[in-house]
Amino acid sequence: MAKAEGSGGERCQTGIDGLDSILNGGIPRGNTTLVTGTCGTGKTSLSLEFIIHGAEEGEVGLFIAATETPEKLRGSMIPYDFLKPKMLEEKIGFMRLEEIYDAAGVAREVVIDDKGLKSLIKAIVDQVKRKKAKRLVVDSITSICARLSTEDRIRDFISGFSDALAKVDCTALLVSEVPSGSSNYSPYGVEEAVSDGVVLLGNLERQGDLLRTLQVVKMRGTTHSRAKYILDLTSAGVLLAPLLKGGD
Amino acid sequence: MAKAEGSGGERCQTGIDGLDSILNGGIPRGNTTLVTGTCGTGKTSLSLEFIIHGAEEGEVGLFIAATETPEKLRGSMIPYDFLKPKMLEEKIGFMRLEEIYDAAGVAREVVIDDKGLKSLIKAIVDQVKRKKAKRLVVDSITSICARLSTEDRIRDFISGFSDALAKVDCTALLVSEVPSGSSNYSPYGVEEAVSDGVVLLGNLERQGDLLRTLQVVKMRGTTHSRAKYILDLTSAGVLLAPLLKGGD
Amino acid sequence: MAKAEGSGGERCQTGIDGLDSILNGGIPRGNTTLVTGTCGTGKTSLSLEFIIHGAEEGEVGLFIAATETPEKLRGSMIPYDFLKPKMLEEKIGFMRLEEIYDAAGVAREVVIDDKGLKSLIKAIVDQVKRKKAKRLVVDSITSICARLSTEDRIRDFISGFSDALAKVDCTALLVSEVPSGSSNYSPYGVEEAVSDGVVLLGNLERQGDLLRTLQVVKMRGTTHSRAKYILDLTSAGVLLAPLLKGGD
Amino acid sequence: MAKAEGSGGERCQTGIDGLDSILNGGIPRGNTTLVTGTCGTGKTSLSLEFIIHGAEEGEVGLFIAATETPEKLRGSMIPYDFLKPKMLEEKIGFMRLEEIYDAAGVAREVVIDDKGLKSLIKAIVDQVKRKKAKRLVVDSITSICARLSTEDRIRDFISGFSDALAKVDCTALLVSEVPSGSSNYSPYGVEEAVSDGVVLLGNLERQGDLLRTLQVVKMRGTTHSRAKYILDLTSAGVLLAPLLKGGD
Amino acid sequence: MAKAEGSGGERCQTGIDGLDSILNGGIPRGNTTLVTGTCGTGKTSLSLEFIIHGAEEGEVGLFIAATETPEKLRGSMIPYDFLKPKMLEEKIGFMRLEEIYDAAGVAREVVIDDKGLKSLIKAIVDQVKRKKAKRLVVDSITSICARLSTEDRIRDFISGFSDALAKVDCTALLVSEVPSGSSNYSPYGVEEAVSDGVVLLGNLERQGDLLRTLQVVKMRGTTHSRAKYILDLTSAGVLLAPLLKGGD
Amino acid sequence: MAKAEGSGGERCQTGIDGLDSILNGGIPRGNTTLVTGTCGTGKTSLSLEFIIHGAEEGEVGLFIAATETPEKLRGSMIPYDFLKPKMLEEKIGFMRLEEIYDAAGVAREVVIDDKGLKSLIKAIVDQVKRKKAKRLVVDSITSICARLSTEDRIRDFISGFSDALAKVDCTALLVSEVPSGSSNYSPYGVEEAVSDGVVLLGNLERQGDLLRTLQVVKMRGTTHSRAKYILDLTSAGVLLAPLLKGGD
Repeated sequence: MAKAEGSGGERCQTGIDGLDSILNGGIPRGNTTLVTGTCGTGKTSLSLEFIIHGAEEGEVGLFIAATETPEKLRGSMIPYDFLKPKMLEEKIGFMRLEEIYDAAGVAREVVIDDKGLKSLIKAIVDQVKRKKAKRLVVDSITSICARLSTEDRIRDFISGFSDALAKVDCTALLVSEVPSGSSNYSPYGVEEAVSDGVVLLGNLERQGDLLRTLQVVKMRGTTHSRAKYILDLTSAGVLLAPLLKGGD
Repeated sequence: MAKAEGSGGERCQTGIDGLDSILNGGIPRGNTTLVTGTCGTGKTSLSLEFIIHGAEEGEVGLFIAATETPEKLRGSMIPYDFLKPKMLEEKIGFMRLEEIYDAAGVAREVVIDDKGLKSLIKAIVDQVKRKKAKRLVVDSITSICARLSTEDRIRDFISGFSDALAKVDCTALLVSEVPSGSSNYSPYGVEEAVSDGVVLLGNLERQGDLLRTLQVVKMRGTTHSRAKYILDLTSAGVLLAPLLKGGD
Repeated sequence: MAKAEGSGGERCQTGIDGLDSILNGGIPRGNTTLVTGTCGTGKTSLSLEFIIHGAEEGEVGLFIAATETPEKLRGSMIPYDFLKPKMLEEKIGFMRLEEIYDAAGVAREVVIDDKGLKSLIKAIVDQVKRKKAKRLVVDSITSICARLSTEDRIRDFISGFSDALAKVDCTALLVSEVPSGSSNYSPYGVEEAVSDGVVLLGNLERQGDLLRTLQVVKMRGTTHSRAKYILDLTSAGVLLAPLLKGGD
Repeated sequence: MAKAEGSGGERCQTGIDGLDSILNGGIPRGNTTLVTGTCGTGKTSLSLEFIIHGAEEGEVGLFIAATETPEKLRGSMIPYDFLKPKMLEEKIGFMRLEEIYDAAGVAREVVIDDKGLKSLIKAIVDQVKRKKAKRLVVDSITSICARLSTEDRIRDFISGFSDALAKVDCTALLVSEVPSGSSNYSPYGVEEAVSDGVVLLGNLERQGDLLRTLQVVKMRGTTHSRAKYILDLTSAGVLLAPLLKGGD
Repeated sequence: MAKAEGSGGERCQTGIDGLDSILNGGIPRGNTTLVTGTCGTGKTSLSLEFIIHGAEEGEVGLFIAATETPEKLRGSMIPYDFLKPKMLEEKIGFMRLEEIYDAAGVAREVVIDDKGLKSLIKAIVDQVKRKKAKRLVVDSITSICARLSTEDRIRDFISGFSDALAKVDCTALLVSEVPSGSSNYSPYGVEEAVSDGVVLLGNLERQGDLLRTLQVVKMRGTTHSRAKYILDLTSAGVLLAPLLKGGD
Repeated sequence: MAKAEGSGGERCQTGIDGLDSILNGGIPRGNTTLVTGTCGTGKTSLSLEFIIHGAEEGEVGLFIAATETPEKLRGSMIPYDFLKPKMLEEKIGFMRLEEIYDAAGVAREVVIDDKGLKSLIKAIVDQVKRKKAKRLVVDSITSICARLSTEDRIRDFISGFSDALAKVDCTALLVSEVPSGSSNYSPYGVEEAVSDGVVLLGNLERQGDLLRTLQVVKMRGTTHSRAKYILDLTSAGVLLAPLLKGGD
């Protein structure tokens, strides 16, 4: 749905150079956005930076990791030039997905059914409320989707989750892992349909080099560029550059 | 089936610049048209505008959403230049698909069987009759199709639905979500065969930019252009421009 | 099997400009031909015109529709320049596939077994005999094939059907719906092998425009061109033009 | 296995201009060859001509058809310039596959098991012996393979069949139907591995025209060209022309 | 693992011009090599020549055929210029796979289980020992793999087989049939991973001609060229020529 | 996550010319890296060299092989110019995966369940601790993944394994076998998501020659080049050269 530049709706600035201008000011606050791409395209780095820049602005962030331990994540974060260790402890919470599963009572279930699905949403939203988090990352939702097992439940999970977060004014990034060689936006093909936005990270082979790219495929509540940008991971954080033109 | 320009059959003007002229005057009234495409191609925006322009002409519209809450949809609609809030309340009804499921008594069923299928059609048509709606959008039918589960029932649903709407002179858009990377018109491959029309929204990558496109693949009861147009989402609504030629 | 031009075997003229000359005089009478293609390629228009031109020549035609109601079909037919309403009533019969299912006693079965398959063939042929039809269209056989469920039964259905029609000298078109994005001649891959002929309707994207094409892939009992033609739907009916060369 | 030109091993001349020279004299007598291709590529025409030319040389031929009735086949054959009706009756036998199924006692079985497989081979070979046939065509084996259902049984059928025919010095063509859009030599992927030869018929799109092509992919017991030839169906029978070079 | 040219490890010369030099002297003795390719690419010819050249050097060879009878194979072998019939009887043994199945007691089993798998390896190795064979061909292993049915058992079969043969210093070629149109090295995707070497035979279409190609994709225990060569089947045996360069 | 060059985090030098400079000093110590590619691309050679160069630096290495026997592996290693036999015995341990299965008590299970999964991780880590190994190779994990059977357990295995190894400061390479013709990073599509790094080995066909390539797709805890390099297997070990540019 088109929205005039500068018009209503508060924005949540990602703090990532270039991305906020692609989005005409940032992600519409309360939106749940899929950050999707194959392995090595920078999904985790972009999501961490979204949380860190929020903390710099005084917003509490929660990072729920399915794979890496909080120690590993903290270890990986140190070299950023702009990172202040104290901020990490005060403003950013790290949790493992397993803790959420335990809280929701679904840790033992192979397939999460409709009841478990609701407990799972509640368990995450409870954490968001308790921590007064304004930014949330779930890295990744792919293993959750696998346990939900039907397309219908994946739809219900993402749309129910997104509704609940909108109510507490929390802006979320859901990381989605696409198998290499796939041209899809998500492994189950429905995640992108029910999300408010889709940020697609990709690879671009150019003269033997494998560049990273970023494209905002969809974002409800704002107009935005859909052009493909080169994404560069540097010690100054994620940088975006137009793919083919010199200036902006 | 070919139909002479200007010849019989009342048209339902979409009000979308360019689309009505592609269709030689609009959608033949009573037709049920599939609006199909991958995520971010503008399916919801186009469908909302179809409803809004109808309201401007005094026609009641009903928008049934599978994913977004009416609040979210209303929120997204505000920035349109031509939008008058009062019109929204008087002429446009928003419902969630869940309300329809409840009315049809299929809310608890995982797979909707032949009996449920008929209840579902009846529940929607009842709403259309009660509201005296002349325009209907179901955004989207993809999760309904998943619950119908067999190709045969999907055919029966769309063709039964289309017959019932034709009788009450209601023109409908059924939004269909195609997974990215697919070159199909629909996820189940039969939806397009039983619809009266197919409007295909797509992406076109050009020099790093991801353009939106629109193509009328099929429309019963009228001749029409099958050329591909560039679709632009602006604060003045959906705009269409020919893909390769300057004027029209 | 090759057949000399002008040599034996009566032809059934389709009345479609160009198609009869592609076929060196028309479809060999008694042949059962698959008319196949994706959505919007003109399968129904071509089939209707085959029936109408037969009626103009005094031959009774029967049109069995799986999806559209006879009312809708009649409504769509009116704008043709050459159409005379009276002819429609006298020479052309419209039936819904459901009536055939009822007559064959398979309306309640999900999967049609070997016995149902024979009843189904008999029910259609009975209608052909009763109406003394010389031309038959089944639009489409795709949902029938889905209910036959095994490749073997699809083969038996089409070849048994084709044998029975040949005996009563009736020339038939069986419409087959191919999902978009498929390069196959039929959804089950066996329909084309057991048909006497295959007319393939397709799309050709040229400079942003989506043209319709026609190709006679196979026709038993006659030599024929296998070249691809441009198919145009006009108020004067289906027109064919060579794809690349000026004249004929 | 390479074999010197002119060296040992009697040949069975197909009588088809060009094919015998591609094969350095004909098919090694006793070989069982797969004739494979999509619909409309000329498999039946080529096989019929193989039988007819044998009859002209005084060799009895047997044609077993899965789909077409003997009447239809005889009807299609008449226009050939070189065809003498009397020869048809004396030297060529036509049977339907169903008669073979009846003789083998497998007519009622959906899946043909190991025992049925042997009965089936025996029933065909018995016919070959009784008629003293030196040439055999089965058009097609695809529905037989479907009923054999496992790759292992398909292998056993073709290799057992081929062994038995070699013992009675009968040269056979087995027609195999490949779905359009497939680049395979056979629907089950094993038929070609166990056959003595593979003749691949194909389509070649050139400037809008759909040409037929022939390629001998494999032939045990002789060297042969593997080049692609243009196949033309004329009233003088099948003609082959080199694809790119002028003469031969 | 790289190995210096001329360095340790005895080689088993294939006797095929070009192949031994591609392999810097031959196949490392005791290696089990997959010879893989689609139908008609020369797998059987190459394997037979490997056995025959061994016999010329005084090494006993064993050829186990899944499809062809020993008679047929012997018949196909005669025309080679270098073939001496006496050698065939003294140095080369031909067996059918069925005999091995009988010896292993798995002839009646549809699926060969872990126990059968070990009996099968033992039955083949027993034959190798009894005949004191230094070269072995199994043409093909594809039907064995089908009966092993799980990827795990296919791995266990090939790696157990390869270990056992290495102990008796026997160099083996395992023929693997790839369906046409596949770009894989094997039908199950694991055969190549557990073999010591992979020789890939392929087709190359050039100006309408279908050339055969050979490529050594992998060979443990030696460096080797991985370039693609043209393979020619002549009465002087298999000949290899570089694909693009004149000399060597 | 980006990390400044030269900044914190100890590196584990692979000793492979070029690879350490691609990684700005080596693999971050404690990382678990997927070495993935189709057959013949050099996965085993690269992994062995990683272990050998560690031994040269005095670090104990453990090589767990799923397919090859330790004898075969030792045999293949001799020709390296830099290899000192004594070092092999003192610093490098070779084990077969079967020994690990026995120790974990899962040798008899077809599917390894959650309990077996933990025993398996423990059994490997126990070996690492006992031998005080600082480098580990598992060649390959593909058959383990097959036995884990669900994507969820594959995730749990790799991430649990990687956590446990990080704690004992052991840097690991997990070899992953991709079927030829696949463009994926792994057979199950999840292995790459939970690994700390992905080194992709591939093939590049150039003028008939099949070159090997290496690309670091992902490496947590360091910046790195993602360009494609030519990988050459020589008697001096693995060599890397830039794909398109002369120098570095």
